[in-house]
Amino acid sequence: MENTARIEQNLEATIERATGPSCPPGLSKAIHHAVFPGGARVRPSLSLAVADACECQDTALAEGAAVAIELLHCASLIHDDLPCFDNADIRRGKPSVHVLYGEPLAVLAGDALIVEAFNAVTRSGSNHPARMAKLITCIAKSVGMTGGITAGQAWESEEVIDINEYHSAKTGALFVGAVSVGAIAAGQDPAPWRDVGANIGAAYQIADDLMDALGSAEECGKPVAQDCAHTRPNAVQEYGVSGASALLKETVEAAADAVPDCAHVGALRSLIVSQAKRLIPAKHAQKVV
Amino acid sequence: MENTARIEQNLEATIERATGPSCPPGLSKAIHHAVFPGGARVRPSLSLAVADACECQDTALAEGAAVAIELLHCASLIHDDLPCFDNADIRRGKPSVHVLYGEPLAVLAGDALIVEAFNAVTRSGSNHPARMAKLITCIAKSVGMTGGITAGQAWESEEVIDINEYHSAKTGALFVGAVSVGAIAAGQDPAPWRDVGANIGAAYQIADDLMDALGSAEECGKPVAQDCAHTRPNAVQEYGVSGASALLKETVEAAADAVPDCAHVGALRSLIVSQAKRLIPAKHAQKVV
Repeated sequence: MENTARIEQNLEATIERATGPSCPPGLSKAIHHAVFPGGARVRPSLSLAVADACECQDTALAEGAAVAIELLHCASLIHDDLPCFDNADIRRGKPSVHVLYGEPLAVLAGDALIVEAFNAVTRSGSNHPARMAKLITCIAKSVGMTGGITAGQAWESEEVIDINEYHSAKTGALFVGAVSVGAIAAGQDPAPWRDVGANIGAAYQIADDLMDALGSAEECGKPVAQDCAHTRPNAVQEYGVSGASALLKETVEAAADAVPDCAHVGALRSLIVSQAKRLIPAKHAQKVV
Repeated sequence: MENTARIEQNLEATIERATGPSCPPGLSKAIHHAVFPGGARVRPSLSLAVADACECQDTALAEGAAVAIELLHCASLIHDDLPCFDNADIRRGKPSVHVLYGEPLAVLAGDALIVEAFNAVTRSGSNHPARMAKLITCIAKSVGMTGGITAGQAWESEEVIDINEYHSAKTGALFVGAVSVGAIAAGQDPAPWRDVGANIGAAYQIADDLMDALGSAEECGKPVAQDCAHTRPNAVQEYGVSGASALLKETVEAAADAVPDCAHVGALRSLIVSQAKRLIPAKHAQKVV
């Protein structure tokens, strides 16, 4: 089965089981809305691609970790869209969760998805409890309060911030987590994979900055020109469109080059470069390259 | 060491490690404010008392689980106090987290504590990975979207609710989790402990309803008369003060009676009854009993 199909199937089974008949109907709807249909599922695709490249035999464990990464990504989007953060009305081209279901259910849907992420990876770990424990530690770090997503979002409340630390926590950490869990599920050391995730995260951030400056809300499925509106530091402001574009290309190449020696190194490098091309729609890619 | 001292020491070590020097300062302050000084630490005390009663040898595992239960309780209080839920300005006699640090950091502090709860129990599980996995599943259930705390809070957004299901999810589930983790950490089946937790949760809810109707904000450390203000169904409205008081006494006795055969059954039953007496301050206890 294709990895994208494996991801959807596992997400559906996880959410089906988690929401069940005794889940409050509004919460269940909010959670389904937040998870389906998803975006490009970039992070869990990376997890499975790295697991494949490492010849992981425990497919259930890799899938459990990939599901956890995606659920945590969905949770962070719901909370990031709340009025007290970005106050974003649209996400993935649909009304955001709090617009459709209200703030209480948006807060709770995020909370419940964080809980379910840890539950899902635990459930998948029965054959390899030691790997499962390492996965949880790795995943917790990527969303935690020191260098993880919650830290990244919390830097936005500080007056003085290190922009690299901010982006690395808010965007990079979950990409580092996504590639690391693929290696861990295969029983391998995740350390050599760190730079792959960090560079993909950096590339993703630069692409996001470019789309925020160049794209339309329709193309992005979310409000644009937000960096300017929220006076957030970004790559376009710092380097201009052509400088940011050159940096994006370099960073994607650095991510591909960082792939350590593994069974399917060539295939994984090609995947990283081809995925990166989808970050900027063709129309803008011409302006950018 | 006394169990209360063990709990504080473990909470301090966990939060110290989790916030670290690279945690955003505002988030770190919000998290410290939410966790210290705590309330009566009723739930983690129960976890350790049950672990002791089951002669648990892996004290680190029991402590990790107790810490996780308390961090999840703290997280639920932060989010429950938010303007979109109870809009409560005081908690444990101090300004609530969002009043002092703003809504974004209050949302994030709750998120980060949920993550750290799972991280803490995983870290403590190296000697017993199979028990650790069971602990995570149990803890996730007690705060999850089907019968756990997030479900309980989400029922408040529904027009039609089953009041028992609501209380059981919002208050009972974490008490069931608290006693269950004590048994699991000791390598025992948590099923016979379920009714102990469920009855303590029910007693706690009745006591809370009584204090909401009878107490002052000073005594409770949080706003009172909230059930009436939010037109939430409660035991005092349903049975009157004397009816609710009788029900409280019966429920505490049922909790003590439900303690299954274990090494220190007498001591645990006495602890449950003596802890229950602290739920209603002496002044009101006279009115109540």
